[in-house]
Amino acid sequence: MIAISHAHAAEPPRKVDRSSHPEDTVIDLGGGVKIGGGHFQVIAGPCSVEGENLLDIAARCKTAGATLLRGGAYKPRTSPYDRQGLGERGLDLLVEARAQTGMPIVSEVMDTRDVELFVDRGIDVMQIGTRNAQNFALLKEVGRTKTPILLKRGMAGTLEELLMAAEYIMSEGNDKVILCERGIRTFETATRNTFDLSAIPALHDFTHLPVAADPSHATGCARYVGPMALAACAAGADALEIEVHDDPASAWSDGPQALTCDEFDAMMDQIRSIRSAIFGPRDEDARP
Amino acid sequence: MIAISHAHAAEPPRKVDRSSHPEDTVIDLGGGVKIGGGHFQVIAGPCSVEGENLLDIAARCKTAGATLLRGGAYKPRTSPYDRQGLGERGLDLLVEARAQTGMPIVSEVMDTRDVELFVDRGIDVMQIGTRNAQNFALLKEVGRTKTPILLKRGMAGTLEELLMAAEYIMSEGNDKVILCERGIRTFETATRNTFDLSAIPALHDFTHLPVAADPSHATGCARYVGPMALAACAAGADALEIEVHDDPASAWSDGPQALTCDEFDAMMDQIRSIRSAIFGPRDEDARP
Amino acid sequence: MIAISHAHAAEPPRKVDRSSHPEDTVIDLGGGVKIGGGHFQVIAGPCSVEGENLLDIAARCKTAGATLLRGGAYKPRTSPYDRQGLGERGLDLLVEARAQTGMPIVSEVMDTRDVELFVDRGIDVMQIGTRNAQNFALLKEVGRTKTPILLKRGMAGTLEELLMAAEYIMSEGNDKVILCERGIRTFETATRNTFDLSAIPALHDFTHLPVAADPSHATGCARYVGPMALAACAAGADALEIEVHDDPASAWSDGPQALTCDEFDAMMDQIRSIRSAIFGPRDEDARP
Amino acid sequence: MIAISHAHAAEPPRKVDRSSHPEDTVIDLGGGVKIGGGHFQVIAGPCSVEGENLLDIAARCKTAGATLLRGGAYKPRTSPYDRQGLGERGLDLLVEARAQTGMPIVSEVMDTRDVELFVDRGIDVMQIGTRNAQNFALLKEVGRTKTPILLKRGMAGTLEELLMAAEYIMSEGNDKVILCERGIRTFETATRNTFDLSAIPALHDFTHLPVAADPSHATGCARYVGPMALAACAAGADALEIEVHDDPASAWSDGPQALTCDEFDAMMDQIRSIRSAIFGPRDEDARP
Repeated sequence: MIAISHAHAAEPPRKVDRSSHPEDTVIDLGGGVKIGGGHFQVIAGPCSVEGENLLDIAARCKTAGATLLRGGAYKPRTSPYDRQGLGERGLDLLVEARAQTGMPIVSEVMDTRDVELFVDRGIDVMQIGTRNAQNFALLKEVGRTKTPILLKRGMAGTLEELLMAAEYIMSEGNDKVILCERGIRTFETATRNTFDLSAIPALHDFTHLPVAADPSHATGCARYVGPMALAACAAGADALEIEVHDDPASAWSDGPQALTCDEFDAMMDQIRSIRSAIFGPRDEDARP
Repeated sequence: MIAISHAHAAEPPRKVDRSSHPEDTVIDLGGGVKIGGGHFQVIAGPCSVEGENLLDIAARCKTAGATLLRGGAYKPRTSPYDRQGLGERGLDLLVEARAQTGMPIVSEVMDTRDVELFVDRGIDVMQIGTRNAQNFALLKEVGRTKTPILLKRGMAGTLEELLMAAEYIMSEGNDKVILCERGIRTFETATRNTFDLSAIPALHDFTHLPVAADPSHATGCARYVGPMALAACAAGADALEIEVHDDPASAWSDGPQALTCDEFDAMMDQIRSIRSAIFGPRDEDARP
Repeated sequence: MIAISHAHAAEPPRKVDRSSHPEDTVIDLGGGVKIGGGHFQVIAGPCSVEGENLLDIAARCKTAGATLLRGGAYKPRTSPYDRQGLGERGLDLLVEARAQTGMPIVSEVMDTRDVELFVDRGIDVMQIGTRNAQNFALLKEVGRTKTPILLKRGMAGTLEELLMAAEYIMSEGNDKVILCERGIRTFETATRNTFDLSAIPALHDFTHLPVAADPSHATGCARYVGPMALAACAAGADALEIEVHDDPASAWSDGPQALTCDEFDAMMDQIRSIRSAIFGPRDEDARP
Repeated sequence: MIAISHAHAAEPPRKVDRSSHPEDTVIDLGGGVKIGGGHFQVIAGPCSVEGENLLDIAARCKTAGATLLRGGAYKPRTSPYDRQGLGERGLDLLVEARAQTGMPIVSEVMDTRDVELFVDRGIDVMQIGTRNAQNFALLKEVGRTKTPILLKRGMAGTLEELLMAAEYIMSEGNDKVILCERGIRTFETATRNTFDLSAIPALHDFTHLPVAADPSHATGCARYVGPMALAACAAGADALEIEVHDDPASAWSDGPQALTCDEFDAMMDQIRSIRSAIFGPRDEDARP
C-alpha cells in the first residue's frame, strides 16, 4: 500500500550517482594500490596504534597479503575515561610502518582542526568513522583535500544518507571516496551490529564509487570475522577492512573482534580462493 | 558499561543448544536428500503455487540443480484483499510436481487446523513463516508431527527467540528443525528487509540445527538475490531458499524478487564454484 | 530524496480508513461500557490468571476506578518451559470475577481452535497479542464472531500493518476492533520495548477505530508505568491497559511491570486529573 | 534467558549518575530562567533563522508563554545542496531578538572551530544536534566552556550513550548539561522518528540532569506536535523545544513540523492546564 519513489528522478543526477558516471570509479590509494573497477584490496591492522608493536603487526599483515595498513591514532571512545589514542605519535608510527612495508596507511580523523595535520603527514587515506558520518563540517573539510576518504556508514544511516555524505565530500572537490558498510544498529544483540551485506550490491547499483566492508566492527566477534569477510567478498565488496592484533587479549580497544596474525593469514588464503572462484584469476590486484 | 550474560548458564542445556548435541544434526528431508553436517541443499520454486506452470518451473529448477521444491498453497498476505493461495489444490499440484521430478516439497502451514492435512498429503517439509515465528500454538502442533520443519526467523526476532521457537517444536518431540534467516526489519528501506548473514555463523555456534538462508525475501529484489545467495554460502549456510518463476512479472505475489529460470540456472553455477572453493569438492550433496 | 505516497489513494477506502467512516467508532464492550468517541476506559488486572487471588485483584481494581478486567488464561511464553496459563479454568475465574464486580472481561486467544470456546464462555473482549498480530488465520476466525477485539500492534508492526490486521477482522464482518499500541522493538534496551505514543494521534488521523495503550508491556518496569499512562492519556488514548497484581514479586509472569493495587489506585487519581484538565469534566465515562 | 547488568556497578559513579548527585540539578540558563528540579521551560522558535521575521516570531512566542528562543544559524542539512544556515548573521539576529524580548537564546553549534564564536556572542545555550551526539571532539570543546549545553540524543543512541556523551562534556568541567529526547530511528515511517517518551522517566532515574523533549523533530508533523508535547509534559519533561514559524509553508527547513504562532499559543494553554493538573500551581517557573 506504500509506494516509495525517488523524488530526485527529475533532478539532475548527483556526483555520487551511477547515472552521472556509468563506469566504476577507480581510485589510486598510493604506491599504485588501486581500488574499484575490479581492483580489490585488504586493509588490515590494529584498532588503535599502541606503540612499536605496530611495526610487527604491519609486517605480518603484509606477508599474509594485506595491501593497506590501518591503525587509529585518534580514537572515538564511548566513555571519556576509556583509553584515548596516541595522537600525533600514532601518526608517526604509521608513517614509519609505511616506510618499512610499502603499504599505504589509513587512519581516522575526528576533528576539522586535525585535517591539515593528516595532510601534512601524508596519511594516504583518511577514514571518517561511523559517529561522524553526518558531521557535515568534517565532511566538507576533508572534501577540500586531495586525499582519498574511507567513509563509514552511520550506525543508523540509510544508504541514501551515506550517498549524501559522500556527496558532501565530492561537492567540495574531492572525488576519491570509498564507501564502507560496517554494520548498522538493530534490535539484535547477538552480534555487535547487524552487517548489512545487501548494501554492497545495492550501492553498486546506485553509485560508481568503490564499496568496502568491515566485518570486524560489524560482528564484534573474531570467530565470525572470517565467514563474514568471505561473505562480503561473495557479495561483491571492493575492499575489506580487518582488525588484526599480535595479542588481541591485551589490545587497548576492541580486542574481542581482532584476529591474530595467524588467523588473518588463514583467512587471506580463503579470500583468494573465493575471489578466484567467483571472478576468475586476476592480475590487476596488488596481492589478493 | 553493560554486560550481557546468559542467565541459563546454570540451567540444563536446551534441546536446541550445541552443548546438548555437539555434532551437527543431519536431517533426512525425503528421498535421501539430507541437510546439515556438510550436506547442502537448494530449495527453489515460486512464491505462490498458481497452477500447472508449477510443473514447468519445477522441472527447470531441478535441471538447474535445485534439490527441493517450494511453493505456497496457503499464503500470508498483508491485505485481506490481496490474492490468497490455492489451498488444497495447491498442495495437490506440489504433490504432482514431486511425482514428476522426485524433489521433496516444502510448503507453508499457517493454521493449527491445517497441520493434519499437510501430514496426510505427505508434504515433506512444513514451513513456519516469519509472521508465525512466535505462534506458539502452531509451533506446538507441528512439534507433534514427524515432518521436518523449516522455521523462519521472525521479522523482529532475536536469535535467542528463534532458538526458543525451535525449542517449542523440539519439546513436543520433533527434532527435525531447520532454522532460516530471511531478513529482519530495520530502518533501512533500500532493501525489503535487512539480511542478517552474521546470524549464520552465530547460529552454528549456538546450536547443532541446520541453518538455511532466504535471499529472496531478505532483499526483495531479484538483482540482489544472486550476490546475496553467494554471500550466504560463503557465510556457511546449509541451504538456500530461492524464489523462481517462469514469468516474474505476472507472479501472484513477490514477483520483483523472483529469479527467472535462466537467472536461477546461472546462479547455481556460481553457487557450485563458491562452495567448491571454500569447502572443496563434495560427494555427499545431492547436486550442488 | 525519498517520497512516500499511499498507493491506495486511488483505491476505494478500506473499512478501517477514517475516510470511509468520518466519525469515531464507539463500541459497546458489555454492560454499557463504551469506548471511542470520547468514552475512555481503563482495563486492569493481572498478566496471568493464577487462581482465587484474581477475585481480590478485580475488586481492588474496580474500587480504584478500572472499568474492565484483564487476565491471561492462555499465555504466550517465550520459552516452552515457562509457566503456561490455566486455560479453561482461567476463563472460569474471569467469569466469576465478572459476576462479582460487574466489569466486562478481556482475555487473549491464541489458537483458531479456541475461538469458539471464548465465545461460548461469553468473554466480552478477545485480545490478539503482539506475537499473533499477523496470524491471519486467527484474525479471520475472530472476524467471524461478534465479540469486540483488542488488537495489539506487532513488535515490528508498522501502523499500516496494524490497520491491515484490523481490516482482516473487519473484512469478515466484525467491526468491533480496538487498536492497541504496546511498544515496538528497537535497539534501546533500557525499557522492555519502545512505547510509540505518536502512534495515538497518527492512528486517530488514519482510522475511526478506538486506540488503546498498554504502558505495562511497553516499558516493562512498574516505576515507569504511571508516567507513561499519563502520557498516553495526554496523547489522546481511548483506553489504557494496565497490569495490576496483589503481589507482583510472586506473579507467574511479568511481575516487574505490574503495579500493586495501591500504586494503581494512586495512578487512577492522576489519570482523572489529567483527563479533566485536557478534556474537561465528562459524564459519559463509566468511572474515570 | 538474557540478564543485563550494569558492569559499572562496582565502578565509581560517573558525574552524570544520580548516585553521584541525588538532587535534581538546576541550571540557570540566563536572565534567571532556570531548568530542572521542578523548573519547567519552553524553548520555541523557527528551525532556521531566516531574517528579520525572527523578531516577529520571537515576540509572538514570548507572548504565548515561551521562555527561551531557539533558531538555527548553522544548519545540518542532509544534502549539501539544501539551503544552509545564515551563519554569523543568524547569530546576530538571535542576539537582537534577545535584546527585544529578554528571552535567552539557544542555537546549534556544529564545528569545534565555531565554539569560541558562540561564546563571544554570548549565546545562552549551545545545542549539540543528533548528528553530532557522538562527535567527541565537539563534546570536549563545549565542555571547556561555561555555557549551558542542550544535548540531543543520537538517532540511534541508547540512553547509556546519551549519558556518556554528557559525561564527555562534564569531564571537561562543564556541568550545565540538559539532555533532550528528540525521537529515535526505527522501522516505522508514519512519523519522522519514533518519540521515545519512556526515556524521560528512565533518564530521571539514571541521572540528576534536566531532561527536555522535542516533539517537532520526533514526529515531523505539526498536527502531532500538540498531543505529543502534552504527553512529554505528562511523562515528566523539564522542558519542551517546539518549532514555531510565522509561515510554515515558506520555511527554509522542516516547515511540515512547525506550528504557526496561533497554534503555539493554543498549545501553551493546554500545557499550562496539564502541568497544573499533575504538579499543582507553581510559582517558580518563569511563565508556564
